[in-house]
Amino acid sequence: MKEQLKHVYLFANLDDAQLGRVQEMSRGITLDDGQVLFEVGDEAPRFFLVRSGQIKLSRISFNGDEKVIELVGAGQTFAEALMFAQIPAYPVRAAALGRCELLAINSKGFLDLLRGSVESCFRMMGDMSLRLHKMVDEIDRLTMQSGTERIARFLCAQYHAEGEREFALAAPKGVLASRLSVKPETFSRILHRLADEGLVKIRASRVEILDPERLCGYSMSGF
Amino acid sequence: MKEQLKHVYLFANLDDAQLGRVQEMSRGITLDDGQVLFEVGDEAPRFFLVRSGQIKLSRISFNGDEKVIELVGAGQTFAEALMFAQIPAYPVRAAALGRCELLAINSKGFLDLLRGSVESCFRMMGDMSLRLHKMVDEIDRLTMQSGTERIARFLCAQYHAEGEREFALAAPKGVLASRLSVKPETFSRILHRLADEGLVKIRASRVEILDPERLCGYSMSGF
Repeated sequence: MKEQLKHVYLFANLDDAQLGRVQEMSRGITLDDGQVLFEVGDEAPRFFLVRSGQIKLSRISFNGDEKVIELVGAGQTFAEALMFAQIPAYPVRAAALGRCELLAINSKGFLDLLRGSVESCFRMMGDMSLRLHKMVDEIDRLTMQSGTERIARFLCAQYHAEGEREFALAAPKGVLASRLSVKPETFSRILHRLADEGLVKIRASRVEILDPERLCGYSMSGF
Repeated sequence: MKEQLKHVYLFANLDDAQLGRVQEMSRGITLDDGQVLFEVGDEAPRFFLVRSGQIKLSRISFNGDEKVIELVGAGQTFAEALMFAQIPAYPVRAAALGRCELLAINSKGFLDLLRGSVESCFRMMGDMSLRLHKMVDEIDRLTMQSGTERIARFLCAQYHAEGEREFALAAPKGVLASRLSVKPETFSRILHRLADEGLVKIRASRVEILDPERLCGYSMSGF
């Protein structure tokens, strides 16, 4: 179990004695599909690690619909933000999607452990800030990716409609960006990237398609 | 300036007196395009907030190529993970992309401020873990989005090739998932979602296209 805990950002930087204490303040829980772990407003003395399966966090809206806030998968924790913010009640409902194994960790015990060692807090914060940076990057990459697919497809469609390798963009860049659901600066970065890869040549508002095959295959590649 | 600091996760939960101390330990820096802030191996006594412009963090590979590690934009911090991990030297080079305004904050001073208040650490960790959850969600959403576009396009292409609304999937789901660069479980979730939206009907390995126009328009919508 210690090995599994070390992959979780909250525990990754704890030493062996600290991990032992975490185990002492934890207990395993198994839920069947649909079983509720807690309801909105329940007292919140614990946070959780999903060991297998998936937990659905949701709220019920005014008109009675269930709004899914988050799906938490294996290896991820939930309710630890409440613990840090010392919020006393769960603001959402948690229920199992499929069979689900959890570890429930006593929040007060865990905070006491951290209170005794500000250096552990710093290590954890270092790890969290690295993760944040990686995710900002990943989001940027994914945004670029789906934007690149849309732009490549758009340029291919215009190329096929024109029947010419070189043509003027069908609308001003700002308009195209909005139509293709990317920010104007992302639109420019993507055009530059397609040019860097030798797929197109851009001069002001004119485009020359240098490699129609690769450009038009781009959107299926998922690169 | 205090107002700007409050939007940064590292400072969002500090009280007014603490923010005042952060200002005392900070100084403004302006860089011109291409100007280097620090090189790999330079001593690392400060971390930074980008106030405007963009900073490029990079390493030089063995063959002399520059590998961009991260682009840091306005409102984001960098090198704070080093501070928390108490790493003494910058492992990357930082240079301005375009004109760039920074705030340089003394790392030791900031850690001392936090050392004096483990409750500030907890508030910051609460904020960081909320941000991590939101980003996991955003990454999931973006992955689903580009996956949905690819799958919708694939189904449209097969529909046009078959000339029939109902047909067997061209390959087993696992093979299609891999070909469309999505995980098998994401592939299933996306098919369910397209079915929930009334675009297709799925029975085992057979697909019926219920709404070809919306399905084939899906990939351009960016929804």
